[in-house]
Order: sequence, then C-alpha cells, then structure tokens
Amino acid sequence: MNERRTESVGPTLEELRQRLVDFAAARRWEPFHTPKNLASALTVEAGELLEIFQWLTPEQAAVVMADPDRAHRVRDEVADVLAYLLQFCTAVGVDPLTALAAKIERNELRFPVPGTPAEGEEVNP
Amino acid sequence: MNERRTESVGPTLEELRQRLVDFAAARRWEPFHTPKNLASALTVEAGELLEIFQWLTPEQAAVVMADPDRAHRVRDEVADVLAYLLQFCTAVGVDPLTALAAKIERNELRFPVPGTPAEGEEVNP
Amino acid sequence: MNERRTESVGPTLEELRQRLVDFAAARRWEPFHTPKNLASALTVEAGELLEIFQWLTPEQAAVVMADPDRAHRVRDEVADVLAYLLQFCTAVGVDPLTALAAKIERNELRFPVPGTPAEGEEVNP
Amino acid sequence: MNERRTESVGPTLEELRQRLVDFAAARRWEPFHTPKNLASALTVEAGELLEIFQWLTPEQAAVVMADPDRAHRVRDEVADVLAYLLQFCTAVGVDPLTALAAKIERNELRFPVPGTPAEGEEVNP
Repeated sequence: MNERRTESVGPTLEELRQRLVDFAAARRWEPFHTPKNLASALTVEAGELLEIFQWLTPEQAAVVMADPDRAHRVRDEVADVLAYLLQFCTAVGVDPLTALAAKIERNELRFPVPGTPAEGEEVNP
Repeated sequence: MNERRTESVGPTLEELRQRLVDFAAARRWEPFHTPKNLASALTVEAGELLEIFQWLTPEQAAVVMADPDRAHRVRDEVADVLAYLLQFCTAVGVDPLTALAAKIERNELRFPVPGTPAEGEEVNP
Repeated sequence: MNERRTESVGPTLEELRQRLVDFAAARRWEPFHTPKNLASALTVEAGELLEIFQWLTPEQAAVVMADPDRAHRVRDEVADVLAYLLQFCTAVGVDPLTALAAKIERNELRFPVPGTPAEGEEVNP
Repeated sequence: MNERRTESVGPTLEELRQRLVDFAAARRWEPFHTPKNLASALTVEAGELLEIFQWLTPEQAAVVMADPDRAHRVRDEVADVLAYLLQFCTAVGVDPLTALAAKIERNELRFPVPGTPAEGEEVNP
C-alpha cells in the first residue's frame, strides 16, 4: 500500500481512539455519543462510502483511486467509518483489535483452507 | 476499556490487516474482494450492528454489554465491520490510520473548541 | 395523515413505477439499473433518511416535521427510497404490493395477537 | 412483471399501510415505532436486501430470481423495506405517493431528456 507508513512512525489505532475521545470531550459532544447514535452514524457513513461505487462498473471501481477527487472522498469516508467505529467501541467498552483477532480465529475453524482437513475430520491419505 | 490490552501485547491493526490478506488468499477469495463488493459488505455489517440497537430505548442501549448474548453479538459485528473496512483499504490501497489522522486534523480546524478562536479569527482580548 | 390524498385522485404506486421506467428509458439509464446497483442505491438512500435522525433525541425526532427544512429532507429521502425500491422491483420482476401482502399474512401467523391462540395451539377454556 | 396483478384486484399501498397500522396496534408495538427506530429498521432491511447481492457478479445478480430460495429472500426483503417505509411514513405523517410524485417532477426539470432544452434554455432552431 503506497501511502502506508510503518506503525513505528504513524499513529496507532489506540492513539487515534484516544484523540477522538479528547476531541469529543473538548466540544462536549459526549451526550450525543450513545451506542445507538454511533451505530447509526457508522451505518450512514458506510453508506456514503458505498455511494461512491454504486453506479460504477467493476472496471471503473477497480481504478477509483486514479481519480483525485474520488480518491479524496474514499479516504474521507474510510476515516469517518473508522472514527465512528472507534467511538462506538469506546461507548460500549469493546477493544476492536481483540474482537477482530477472536473473529479471525473463529473463521479459521469455520472456513478451513481447501485441502486442509477441518478440525475433527478424518484425513483420507 | 476493560478488555483492552496494551498494544505491545495485542496485535496491531496492520498485523490483523495482513492476516486478513493471507486468510482470503488461502481460500482464493480475492476475486470477490473488489472495492464495490467490500463497500457493500461493510454497509451490510454496519446495518447488522445497528440491528442490535434498533428497538432498544437509550437506557437499554446504554447497558447492552450487560447481556452476554448481546455483548457477544456486538463484539462479533464490530469485528466484521473492521474486517471489511481493512479488506476494503487493502483493495484500494488506503492506509486507514493515515486517513483518520488527516481527518481529525481537518475536523480540529472545522470545529474549533468553544472559546478557542478559529483560524483567521481575531482574538478580542 | 395530513397530506394524504385519497387514491382515486393521487397517483397509484403502479403509475409511479411506470413513470420511473419511462424516466430512466428517456435518459438511457437502464444499463445502470441492475438489481445490485439499485439495492446499493436503496441502502444508501435509507442511510440518508436515517442521517436526519442520527443525533436527535427521541423527543426531537418526534417533532421532526415541525421544522420546514427537515420536513422537506424527510419527504425527499422517502421519495428516493421508494423510487429505488420500485426500480429494484422492476429490475427483478417483483410486485411490491403482492410481496408485502404475503409478508403481512406470514407475520399474522408468526406474531399472534396476545390473547389469540396461535395456529395449532390448544385453547384452554 | 410476471407476478403483478392489476391494482383493481390486488391491495393498494394505502390498504397495506392501514393493515400495518392495525397490526402494530393489536400487538401494542406503537411505542417502538418512533421515526428514528423505523428509519434504523428501514436501513437495516435495505442492507439485508443488498446482502443477497454482495458477492454476486453482475451476471449472477441478473438471474437472481431463477433460484427459488434467493427469489423468496428477495421478495421477503422487499416486503420488509416497504413495510418499514410505510410505518415510517405513518409515524411522520408523510404520504409516500405524493412525495414520490413531487420528486419525479423535480427530477424531470433537473435531468432534462437529452435533446430537450432545459427550462430557461434558449432553443436554437
């Protein structure tokens, strides 16, 4: 990914989550940041990201970042989705990285790699 | 946040993003992971997170994590939203942490803290 | 409902569906109106309707139509959601009224009125 | 549309809207049917409709109704979207047919048919 920095220079997810907490506190926005409102806002922003793609063919969608205006909108909506996801996680006390690591582990059992026997399956040599 | 681990022990966002890349590659799922499909899946999963809250009063929503079944669903949907967001970012070559940091900076100018003069505003001492 | 007209004077759902078919045909928009694109657009517009309410308290949301600007946005988003739903139905050959009537009948069995015995349930006189 | 009946035999939109009002009243569900909750539920159901299509190619999506299970899901989700849209309209006092007719008229001015001069444009004979 061309614009990615190594995590030692860029901010971590936890640092950004804390900046969002401070940002909302400084503006006294916490009363609006209920789990239900934040889940709504997350869905709305995901829809805005989808909106960029809704009339594009798969071919046009594949080169969406070649258009500077669209590329800016994509980055902007990605940021909004991530911001509301982190604020939601703060509101309900969930660590998103722990939740995702647990889900990946469940999915590795649920969708075994083709050719790999599923847990408990007999191998037929 | 009770279940959060410090980032030095838990996985980083970039490590989880890479695990998702490997997970999809091992199952040959990359052809499905177009930007448009992943933006759709992200919106669908955000809707599933919202579904948990749609009939709850603000009071019920505030204690959603006290119910073990709902708490599990919340963590599961948070994981799904984050997974599709990371896979979308991989597909379009966007670093979500850089995008969010840039957005927070823009928002700090756009929504100045009350009592703080906005950029370009005269201070009245 | 204050602004409702009786169906004998106003347009029917089928007349509006047909106007949307003609509207898209005159502008040669049919190639964009695939089921997948229209389902995306429907979700995006539903999100825009939700956006009006996302930061409102239940009390504020209850009087949303008292504000002329918000009332206009609500009517506009209702129209967009209905337009894409009808265009989706055209694309897949589903009659929305028949589909809804069938669903209400299933729901009447699935959620019996309290005090009414469910189908197959013994009545305890 | 193969399954469409003429409106003189099938139910009208207004009849179905009224049946939904009665359905909710009989089950004492009105307290849940706030505008905000119904806009959330509408978005969630639109997402469930989109979910059917999210991994399909345009070619697969074009024949979605050839698969009886998928066809049933599509009709079911169309019904859910329409039900929540009508219940939302009841909650805010908006007539969806009037709203859509007005929107189509605005769109006819906003997107003139190619070859047709826009309002106020000089015709060059």
